[in-house]
Amino acid sequence: MATIVIIGGGFGGLACAQALGAGLRGTAHRVILVDRRNYHLFQPLLYQVATAALSPADIAVPLRHILARYRNVEVMWGEVTGIDVARREVRLDDRPPLTWDRLALATGGHYSWFGHDDWAVHAPGLKTMADARTIRARLLAAFERAEMETDPVRQRQLMTCAIVGGGPTGVEMAGAVAELARWTLRHDFRRADPRQTRIVLIEAGPRVLAGFPESLSRYAETALAKLGVEVRTGARVTAISANHVDIGDEHIPAGTILWAAGMTASAAGRWLGVETDKAGRIPVAPDLSVPDRPGVYAIGDTALCRGADGKPLPGLAQVAQQQGTHLGRALTRNLVDGTPMPPFRFRNRGDTAVIGRHAAVFDFGWARLTGRIAWLLWGLVHIVLLVGFENRVIVGAQWLWNYFTRERGARLIE
Amino acid sequence: MATIVIIGGGFGGLACAQALGAGLRGTAHRVILVDRRNYHLFQPLLYQVATAALSPADIAVPLRHILARYRNVEVMWGEVTGIDVARREVRLDDRPPLTWDRLALATGGHYSWFGHDDWAVHAPGLKTMADARTIRARLLAAFERAEMETDPVRQRQLMTCAIVGGGPTGVEMAGAVAELARWTLRHDFRRADPRQTRIVLIEAGPRVLAGFPESLSRYAETALAKLGVEVRTGARVTAISANHVDIGDEHIPAGTILWAAGMTASAAGRWLGVETDKAGRIPVAPDLSVPDRPGVYAIGDTALCRGADGKPLPGLAQVAQQQGTHLGRALTRNLVDGTPMPPFRFRNRGDTAVIGRHAAVFDFGWARLTGRIAWLLWGLVHIVLLVGFENRVIVGAQWLWNYFTRERGARLIE
Repeated sequence: MATIVIIGGGFGGLACAQALGAGLRGTAHRVILVDRRNYHLFQPLLYQVATAALSPADIAVPLRHILARYRNVEVMWGEVTGIDVARREVRLDDRPPLTWDRLALATGGHYSWFGHDDWAVHAPGLKTMADARTIRARLLAAFERAEMETDPVRQRQLMTCAIVGGGPTGVEMAGAVAELARWTLRHDFRRADPRQTRIVLIEAGPRVLAGFPESLSRYAETALAKLGVEVRTGARVTAISANHVDIGDEHIPAGTILWAAGMTASAAGRWLGVETDKAGRIPVAPDLSVPDRPGVYAIGDTALCRGADGKPLPGLAQVAQQQGTHLGRALTRNLVDGTPMPPFRFRNRGDTAVIGRHAAVFDFGWARLTGRIAWLLWGLVHIVLLVGFENRVIVGAQWLWNYFTRERGARLIE
Repeated sequence: MATIVIIGGGFGGLACAQALGAGLRGTAHRVILVDRRNYHLFQPLLYQVATAALSPADIAVPLRHILARYRNVEVMWGEVTGIDVARREVRLDDRPPLTWDRLALATGGHYSWFGHDDWAVHAPGLKTMADARTIRARLLAAFERAEMETDPVRQRQLMTCAIVGGGPTGVEMAGAVAELARWTLRHDFRRADPRQTRIVLIEAGPRVLAGFPESLSRYAETALAKLGVEVRTGARVTAISANHVDIGDEHIPAGTILWAAGMTASAAGRWLGVETDKAGRIPVAPDLSVPDRPGVYAIGDTALCRGADGKPLPGLAQVAQQQGTHLGRALTRNLVDGTPMPPFRFRNRGDTAVIGRHAAVFDFGWARLTGRIAWLLWGLVHIVLLVGFENRVIVGAQWLWNYFTRERGARLIE
């Protein structure tokens, strides 16, 4: 009887637990999924919580609930503090350690502020539910303060939102903030005019959505400009304070500053004592195992895994999910009849980002889509991928409502 | 041109602003509603947020949004720190004071721990959205800890929920916690059995729902007992710590302790320097004005207002709402053509409390309802009274979903 411990209930860890739960049904093997949250977060829609379109519970499902049907799988709510590879133990902050026979690390990543940790307090990143609530409160509070402000210069500053990082999250945030300001809030204020909100998207590289083909980046930049977003490419941020962002010598006063650049992997590499790449990811063998750490595997944003072209696979939900499923199935066969661990192969199911109403991009490798069709497909795909039938209905209903009324129902400062 | 300042955007303040906004349309009079939150909270359903059935945004609507159509009404997000009656000023924490010609105090109330302020941290009350999130997290975390606990005595303690106060909030919480434990969570755990949860409802008086006729109290006690809630009437709490409640000499170990007893009015009486009753309420004249404070009115939980029978009106949403509408209309006529302020008369539209599935009580004065019909009517009335069409649809959909699946979709520890 083996114990498999999975750390992290994101896309990778959850898929791994589900595959193991289904495969090991009826055996005596035990699977333990540890997470410091009690829910699985559907991160692709987190920006909609941050911009008041959806509620936290709409994109989160209790891990216990998703995994309740798999009798071999246990969920443990707890914080991992380290790993003892020699003793095959996972250390927890307030409980005795867990002993494992196989260990899957799916601990994800978090934002890094390029060594400027002091920027974090002024420019929060969007990775957790708490981040989304912080950003929502800051965005809405800035408009409230602008309404009360009598100094026009200060009012203009409060009504400026700067977003650092032109990847999918930055682009989606910029589009959503534009729609919130120009449509949802347009009648709500008396002295401030939210339609005059300045939104600046700052990207250090030559184009936004660098992971997509160049034509889609161009499309996104045009669509953002139509929404009134100033896209600043080739612009490196040199300073951030509570109320401004500097790009070189240029000083941009801003009431809200959001960070969507620079991810770094979790502490898993340090726990194992292995050499990681610059982004903190653990290089893995083709079967997702960590070299020289027998029985240890890493998936998702924790792992540096190369694709067929030799390039590292990107930090996408679909990569993590496919790796989780692959690892869960491979471990099942290995435990049940000793089948060796097969290599992982990524199959690109299409990469997408949404800019706003009727504007999105889709890249399937063999085909590209933009505009209304891409936007509709984006919505359908996200409804289908959401976990839980109830969430699908609620999110679908809210989207329809938002579409026809431009309303965003979760405008709480809390 | 007069300025009317309303402090508080609860049921009373909001109704007053709406009546003034409608009545003063086209005039030069100005209405300012000040609240420290940016939303109106539908408090009767707050216990459903605390027990993971609804999300915060489902029962909250931005005050600005509700009042956007009334061009004379401005909403100000800010914290009132005091009132200068002589100078007719409302002091704010971070802005210059507001000058008023008429002032409506609708500042509500909060829980009081009978002089035991140290109990508050162990036994949170349910009044704000933050309270609801705190209680939700504590309830869910207690089950998570029970699952990990190996000592059966300690596990039993973690799976005990004590609720102090047998009014509508205490009864509704007890019923909802019972349904959460016995149904929603029943398959989610491996070592703890949520169906074994002990729920103790502690009431110092001789019966629960003391504001209702005695037959309805008896019905509620029977219905609670059916849900497995231990109802302890005539039981006075003598001590509360992080993990127990004492009733006289009896020691009840409890993992979650909730407070639903003893309300006290806000600081408004102190601001005005008037004598209040024991519960901090400001005695008002029949027209809701505060004696010796010209131009000042108090409504809702802030006011001690006597009904036709000479007894103080209860602290109910319908009382606050009727007073707000009355005051708004009376002030409109007074400002527009000098009509004297008429006295307020409360019309009882029926008082209700829900215990659980198919179990509620309704008291119309001339008629009483219990059971399935009362429960259906309770649901219909609350859907109709909710503010915002979108909220009605979302809450209605979630209730239907909960009804058929026993699911509660907002089980987040955050």
